Amino acid sequence: MRIRDPIHGTIPVDDREKPVVDHPFYQRLRHVKQLGFGDLAFPGATHTRHAHSLGAMHVASRLFDAVCASADLSPEAKGRFRVAVRLAVLCHDIGHMPLSHASEAIAPPRASLDLPGWLADQGGGLASHEDFTAKILLDSSLGQVIRDQFAADSVPPEALVALITGAEPPRGVDFSDRGVDWTPLLRAIVSGELDADRMDYLLRDSFYTGVNYGHYDIDWIVQNLNAAVKDNRAYLALSRAAAFAFEDFLLSRYHMFISVYYHHTPVNFDQMLRRYYGESPREFSIPPDPERFLFCDDVALAHTLRSSSNPWARRIVSRQGYKLLAQFTERDEGYDLSSLVAALNQAGIDHFAVESRGVLSKYFEEGKDPSLFIEDVSTGRLTEVARYTPLYQRYSSAVRLSRLYVRPDQIDSAQSLLVEATGGRERA
Amino acid sequence: MRIRDPIHGTIPVDDREKPVVDHPFYQRLRHVKQLGFGDLAFPGATHTRHAHSLGAMHVASRLFDAVCASADLSPEAKGRFRVAVRLAVLCHDIGHMPLSHASEAIAPPRASLDLPGWLADQGGGLASHEDFTAKILLDSSLGQVIRDQFAADSVPPEALVALITGAEPPRGVDFSDRGVDWTPLLRAIVSGELDADRMDYLLRDSFYTGVNYGHYDIDWIVQNLNAAVKDNRAYLALSRAAAFAFEDFLLSRYHMFISVYYHHTPVNFDQMLRRYYGESPREFSIPPDPERFLFCDDVALAHTLRSSSNPWARRIVSRQGYKLLAQFTERDEGYDLSSLVAALNQAGIDHFAVESRGVLSKYFEEGKDPSLFIEDVSTGRLTEVARYTPLYQRYSSAVRLSRLYVRPDQIDSAQSLLVEATGGRERA
Amino acid sequence: MRIRDPIHGTIPVDDREKPVVDHPFYQRLRHVKQLGFGDLAFPGATHTRHAHSLGAMHVASRLFDAVCASADLSPEAKGRFRVAVRLAVLCHDIGHMPLSHASEAIAPPRASLDLPGWLADQGGGLASHEDFTAKILLDSSLGQVIRDQFAADSVPPEALVALITGAEPPRGVDFSDRGVDWTPLLRAIVSGELDADRMDYLLRDSFYTGVNYGHYDIDWIVQNLNAAVKDNRAYLALSRAAAFAFEDFLLSRYHMFISVYYHHTPVNFDQMLRRYYGESPREFSIPPDPERFLFCDDVALAHTLRSSSNPWARRIVSRQGYKLLAQFTERDEGYDLSSLVAALNQAGIDHFAVESRGVLSKYFEEGKDPSLFIEDVSTGRLTEVARYTPLYQRYSSAVRLSRLYVRPDQIDSAQSLLVEATGGRERA
Amino acid sequence: MRIRDPIHGTIPVDDREKPVVDHPFYQRLRHVKQLGFGDLAFPGATHTRHAHSLGAMHVASRLFDAVCASADLSPEAKGRFRVAVRLAVLCHDIGHMPLSHASEAIAPPRASLDLPGWLADQGGGLASHEDFTAKILLDSSLGQVIRDQFAADSVPPEALVALITGAEPPRGVDFSDRGVDWTPLLRAIVSGELDADRMDYLLRDSFYTGVNYGHYDIDWIVQNLNAAVKDNRAYLALSRAAAFAFEDFLLSRYHMFISVYYHHTPVNFDQMLRRYYGESPREFSIPPDPERFLFCDDVALAHTLRSSSNPWARRIVSRQGYKLLAQFTERDEGYDLSSLVAALNQAGIDHFAVESRGVLSKYFEEGKDPSLFIEDVSTGRLTEVARYTPLYQRYSSAVRLSRLYVRPDQIDSAQSLLVEATGGRERA
Repeated sequence: MRIRDPIHGTIPVDDREKPVVDHPFYQRLRHVKQLGFGDLAFPGATHTRHAHSLGAMHVASRLFDAVCASADLSPEAKGRFRVAVRLAVLCHDIGHMPLSHASEAIAPPRASLDLPGWLADQGGGLASHEDFTAKILLDSSLGQVIRDQFAADSVPPEALVALITGAEPPRGVDFSDRGVDWTPLLRAIVSGELDADRMDYLLRDSFYTGVNYGHYDIDWIVQNLNAAVKDNRAYLALSRAAAFAFEDFLLSRYHMFISVYYHHTPVNFDQMLRRYYGESPREFSIPPDPERFLFCDDVALAHTLRSSSNPWARRIVSRQGYKLLAQFTERDEGYDLSSLVAALNQAGIDHFAVESRGVLSKYFEEGKDPSLFIEDVSTGRLTEVARYTPLYQRYSSAVRLSRLYVRPDQIDSAQSLLVEATGGRERA
Repeated sequence: MRIRDPIHGTIPVDDREKPVVDHPFYQRLRHVKQLGFGDLAFPGATHTRHAHSLGAMHVASRLFDAVCASADLSPEAKGRFRVAVRLAVLCHDIGHMPLSHASEAIAPPRASLDLPGWLADQGGGLASHEDFTAKILLDSSLGQVIRDQFAADSVPPEALVALITGAEPPRGVDFSDRGVDWTPLLRAIVSGELDADRMDYLLRDSFYTGVNYGHYDIDWIVQNLNAAVKDNRAYLALSRAAAFAFEDFLLSRYHMFISVYYHHTPVNFDQMLRRYYGESPREFSIPPDPERFLFCDDVALAHTLRSSSNPWARRIVSRQGYKLLAQFTERDEGYDLSSLVAALNQAGIDHFAVESRGVLSKYFEEGKDPSLFIEDVSTGRLTEVARYTPLYQRYSSAVRLSRLYVRPDQIDSAQSLLVEATGGRERA
Repeated sequence: MRIRDPIHGTIPVDDREKPVVDHPFYQRLRHVKQLGFGDLAFPGATHTRHAHSLGAMHVASRLFDAVCASADLSPEAKGRFRVAVRLAVLCHDIGHMPLSHASEAIAPPRASLDLPGWLADQGGGLASHEDFTAKILLDSSLGQVIRDQFAADSVPPEALVALITGAEPPRGVDFSDRGVDWTPLLRAIVSGELDADRMDYLLRDSFYTGVNYGHYDIDWIVQNLNAAVKDNRAYLALSRAAAFAFEDFLLSRYHMFISVYYHHTPVNFDQMLRRYYGESPREFSIPPDPERFLFCDDVALAHTLRSSSNPWARRIVSRQGYKLLAQFTERDEGYDLSSLVAALNQAGIDHFAVESRGVLSKYFEEGKDPSLFIEDVSTGRLTEVARYTPLYQRYSSAVRLSRLYVRPDQIDSAQSLLVEATGGRERA
Repeated sequence: MRIRDPIHGTIPVDDREKPVVDHPFYQRLRHVKQLGFGDLAFPGATHTRHAHSLGAMHVASRLFDAVCASADLSPEAKGRFRVAVRLAVLCHDIGHMPLSHASEAIAPPRASLDLPGWLADQGGGLASHEDFTAKILLDSSLGQVIRDQFAADSVPPEALVALITGAEPPRGVDFSDRGVDWTPLLRAIVSGELDADRMDYLLRDSFYTGVNYGHYDIDWIVQNLNAAVKDNRAYLALSRAAAFAFEDFLLSRYHMFISVYYHHTPVNFDQMLRRYYGESPREFSIPPDPERFLFCDDVALAHTLRSSSNPWARRIVSRQGYKLLAQFTERDEGYDLSSLVAALNQAGIDHFAVESRGVLSKYFEEGKDPSLFIEDVSTGRLTEVARYTPLYQRYSSAVRLSRLYVRPDQIDSAQSLLVEATGGRERA
């Protein structure tokens, strides 16, 4: 099967993968938009997790094949590892809830998913989309299809879940070959600083929004990837000739956060959806049971919102958000969120304040296995990416954007108040 | 307001148009996919009539501005006509039914829309999406908004409906200036051989599907458009220097029909949806009343299909179409649809046959006002496009593709039967 | 070696090909612009035969690999044929004269090249760029490099010349495997209706000129190519699913001819260059000896023109062409070239008339081996492309554009005369 | 006149500008490649200063028009300033020497250009390309054309030279309107942190090399530009909503320096050319006289090099550069240029070392007028860009790349020596 894709041209899907792609759990992603409410700001951005995951799988193959071209790996391991990274990336998003991230606030407790012991120690609280992904892979009709199709490769669902979540898999599931453990490298392709997921979504979100920050030099990066073995573990390593391409990738992501992912319109509707969930908690829920989860998607949420009489739901359905009063970052002088909020409160102006704050890299942590090395191919020297590029420290840390939104009919008085509070506007 | 669009960059929407764009009837188009079931074949093609109509409005401005640059037109008329073409194109699709064309089979009778007398003589039968567009513009809360916002320009909803449908408007609504009737030209921009609608959708559908047949030289075409006055009527005229660009545009459209619009997968699901509508006629309907039509969109249809126990509905929901057995055109030797159907019937193979047949140009008719002239700017000579370009005759006529689909479990025996019937396959 | 290319991304060149690419005869193409005087009309189009030939080689690999994926071919033959098509395409343009086609008028007699007997019967007259290509491959330091590098593959220069020219090679040079002669297929990739040369130059010329007629669906075409064996000869065959993509390719080429290759500005300068060559025949010549041919390129011609006192040379150097008075095709009524010329003559207006006429397909000839078949993959039926697609007949025949240019100081009176002769201009 | 351009689509040139574009001094730029030896590394990058300057002029209009849309400026000033920035940008590169920067080493003494007094205090030394630009504008047949065409606008060549060089123009030449001096803003468009020159060349060089680092969000930047008046001087100001787009632009430039402008191949040939100029100083020279400068371009240099017997010239002509032994930045541990050079010297290995070092911003200097402000459009607050964006400090400072090249026949022993010196290579 060959699938046409506007980002990658043609995406080949092999005969054993086809039943996975055709399976209702994968097809469900046709009804989960990649950017949630993002299309309210960028009308072109109606793309789904379905297309993204196919694209990410395709990128994963490119990364893996590039790394393998020069790696010391048995043909059997090569085949098996390739199957595993492709499947893991293909399925990494199947647990996403309606509108992608917007519904995570009403996820059921993690405990209700009844995940196996080897995954259970990853904290309590609400189930994340990764927990749902794990649940579906391990305990649904899709899991069974994978078990059947890929038994010969020794790629059970547990192996995919391990690659996706980073958890230590149960005994008997491993990625070793010729005495080297390839888990860090495979994991880095599935989920890491320079993973197939990010590599696809930057290109894709950029393409569909019409915002060109997501471009980066995918060809050059792919051509410069290697496997680096250290203490019998294989890691993803980028030649230093492509270090600047990685920096550019890093910045692309940072700029996509600021301009797209944290755009004030989706943030606005997201906040209203949270208020709806808070005020009318019984109207829509995320079922922990996989087979019921199957139709828990954007269509179901849209239908529920239309039927609701909750005022936030009505605002969402009629697309009448609160009005943006102000937005600022730490660079902008003259803005103080708490005093602005106090002033609005005092003036009796109905509003909400949102701080969008994203840690750009969840992968960098002192003492942990790094997910990417920079390699000097002449000398073989490896440097953790976080130590090599000065941009990393700055741009992998955090993005923070503060916003104030007010009820539409109060925008004029709110604006007068703002001008007063921030020192007035000098320009004509 | 400026809207980001991946095709046109930034689309400006002026302050008086904003209430139209923000109105629920326009926002409804966010839930009507441009290509209906097209995203089943092209997963990237999830774009909507919402984004398309904004894009088409933008193209309409470009066409109009290019034509006006050199035209003899009073400033008032220029302003007024510009408002009219932009609004007409913006609204031309608001009457589209769920999944665009797929639901037209269950449209209510045209008579039930109770359209005004000056539109009423356009035939009986089922209401078309254009009838719904007219209804909403003339007789809904959106119509009122337009009436209020554009009263000063003398651009009432009736004027827009006249441009969209081609009907003769009631007295008092006209597009004359300095003794010349500009209706043919404005109508040509809204709906004609080289209209803003087609010019946007070719680029957009091409972009979103990843199929590159929809490219054509929009800049060159725009730069070469003029107004040509003949018998006191202004027509759209293209300099002969751009005649080949028009041919390319014509072919682009032809190739998009073959490769995208008539792709065998959406044709398959379309057919199944028709069977569902036929078998379970009460489950989903298109209400003639505008305010009830407001939520009659892809979401509503998806929700209904999910709730249905009709086997075709279940097939659609689970994306298990019939299997394509054969497809052919008149060029392909050895295929005869009726004898193949007879053979399948005799063998007891459950199937359906579909002939996709599209008249590529509905605008060309002997004796009618042509919607486009080719102009020799040196001599001023005008030639109807249908007489100038030999491609026109061939490619404006018809596309015809025949397909046979069979029940998935019978595909093997059907294929054997096909090989036999068509003279067998020699290749290994 | 990996070469960055704006069309294809990265072009790999293997270690044995590198000495060919690095050889002065190949590097010479850096100084032969692909479009000759084309950059006078399209300032961006400064690209060279050097980049084009690398790109074409890359396309040739894609075509060959796609065909081979499913072909019945021994691994040795696969390797050898691949080497041959890549080299043949890489070198197919090394005999191009300054400004590509513009200098062919002053080529030396074919006989002076002293080509071997098996090539000698291809007609007398002036040497073509293909003759120079053959000469350089067979009888220069580059030929020796190829002989040395590719001896092990049995790919001597003679084999490349046979693929490039279509001539029957001397005994011992053939492309047979398992009883099948692959010459027609390899030849079709090097030079045929759908060859790597055309496939690259359409994309490249389109990209560099900024004219988008050259786009076509290369991915789809490549995916649908097969080898079809008939009477023990292997031919290039395109699945009928891609027949419309081929039509689009055909039209692309037609439109590039009209809008770029036969643009009135390069045609103008080309004509002036011919006049210069005619009036000052000793100033610049094309040496038949390869080693002297090495520096016979655009730089040498530019230098010569600058040193010349011939008035046409001075016009070219100072870019002061004649002025375009009129251009027309057979579709344009009211123009008659000979009577216009007569009128100009009578009025004493200095001018020249040029008819640009191109046979779009030199490959189609009754009774000859077709270079492309359309294949019905279900039934295995093969149809010559010329019989399958109706566009072929029309668009493979000829393009004809007539132009009249006059001396700049006489343009006003010439225009008055034209208006009179063609029936006047009605428009304001 | 409308010029097709692959970057900007169509570039309009008005009737009074046409004689400037058609003038031999402007046409000369067709023979000055934008990237000098850059096409040796990127074969597609054969583009010239001719196309770039047209593109930059086009960008200048976009910048100016965007700024003016909301500015308080009389219609006369608007028209006059527009003429001035377009012309200044169009002509800013006409003084470029062969291969752009590579020949600046052999420029004649600045004094020999005999520039007028108001320009004369800008330092002695060799003439820069800006000095040549000034000379040609002030004292050549092109200067006269400009004087004639634009007398009515009061845009004499002196005004253009002032905008290009930043020098204080002679009395009577100014850009004031309604009591505000617009010089800083106009100067910023012609030459500043975010000028039309950089904005075009990043896109263009990126396009032609096939390296995609040069993309940035031109539309968003243009839409967010304003004029900010401070102490009766108008400055270029970017809304803070586009501050990240500016950062992206900054990084784009940084990455283009590393990957393209300082690519090791052009740096190699550049160095060889300098050696040739040093060893054979009389063979090629840059004449200070404009009319003789007219044919001092890439063609003339290529011709001279071909005629030379100097070994560096022969290397350049036959494209046989020295071999790259090592390249590194300050980030790369284990490399010390001086000790490597010492080791090569000791081993008798013929080599050269090059440090490519570029100050990315020549505009930022404490106490000087900033060429760009970031503006909070709500409050009117202006912040110098250097203080607003933390990236600025880092990326406007400097790029430094160190390289060592050795004679080709000594590359093997040089490599052994390098491995030893840098601590060896551990990888297989």
